[in-house]
Amino acid sequence: MSRLLAVDLAKSYRLLNHGPTVLVSSAAGQRSNVMAAAWAMPLDFDPPKVAVVIDKATHTRALIEASGEFVLNVPCRAQAEAVLRAGGTDGRQVDKFAHSGLSGLPSQRVAAPRVDGCIAYLECKVISEPRNQQSYDLFIGEVVAAEADAEVFADGHWRFDGDAKRSLHYIAGGAFFATGEAFEVET
Amino acid sequence: MSRLLAVDLAKSYRLLNHGPTVLVSSAAGQRSNVMAAAWAMPLDFDPPKVAVVIDKATHTRALIEASGEFVLNVPCRAQAEAVLRAGGTDGRQVDKFAHSGLSGLPSQRVAAPRVDGCIAYLECKVISEPRNQQSYDLFIGEVVAAEADAEVFADGHWRFDGDAKRSLHYIAGGAFFATGEAFEVET
Repeated sequence: MSRLLAVDLAKSYRLLNHGPTVLVSSAAGQRSNVMAAAWAMPLDFDPPKVAVVIDKATHTRALIEASGEFVLNVPCRAQAEAVLRAGGTDGRQVDKFAHSGLSGLPSQRVAAPRVDGCIAYLECKVISEPRNQQSYDLFIGEVVAAEADAEVFADGHWRFDGDAKRSLHYIAGGAFFATGEAFEVET
Repeated sequence: MSRLLAVDLAKSYRLLNHGPTVLVSSAAGQRSNVMAAAWAMPLDFDPPKVAVVIDKATHTRALIEASGEFVLNVPCRAQAEAVLRAGGTDGRQVDKFAHSGLSGLPSQRVAAPRVDGCIAYLECKVISEPRNQQSYDLFIGEVVAAEADAEVFADGHWRFDGDAKRSLHYIAGGAFFATGEAFEVET
């Protein structure tokens, strides 16, 4: 069981700043779902906002439009197979949590579940922008709660040691990069 | 001198799919500029679009609003110091190309220069979305030309071997991750 610690909201952009692939989890009524998304990024610092692309054809889209909420979960290398399964199936046809071998955890501020075993969580409320949603499948969310796995994120910084808990960067067709070597440049 | 090869526009999202930090280059009249941006992502496949956050306080913002064009350049580890310099200064006060030790290359389809030594280029024309630009500093561009360094991108895939030409993922305060190990998961 990972130990989760709260991340200061004004620093929550740090969870996404390096461009990891995320899992988007959502719920409405008795339904919940999880999908993979490589197209997500921070959009503002304070209040923190994120942008994420959610295709009209997805079950996740319907759940987010019904609930006005979603969670961006940052998965890790140990979950890569599950991420691929969550990206390659349709939540209208299968229970993607079950199909991916992922389980939901309660969130703090939204009804959408978090995905157990991920290394960071950004709970978001949709800022309604109908034109973006319709024309570009682009959703903007305000981050209302953020937590990270204390083993790999502390004092506002990722600290990856081993491989299993490194974040992921999806390429295509089952291929990923792991987040690589950290280095510093003189300012 | 790197050998640049055209990237099929419908595959150009692959250049950004793993979430690298980019340099945004721009020009208007006799002025050109370059800034670093960690908040950029693909937005659509075909026609390919990108989204990037450009703060109102930047010189780049004025040049993009005047010209309706920009280039997303994917820099590599060998350029990390220059990326940091391009991110930490104001183009209204210094010539950022000179200050960063970066030089411009002509682009193919836009007047904005490309940044020499980068490993990929996405030349973009702004799709005007005044509300996004004003409310969120969010710019949407259509990718009209794409090229990549043949040494590290071939057949629609990144192939990083050594360290110098790996892409970058900015963290904060002079710290970066290099793009890490590639691995495949069974589909």
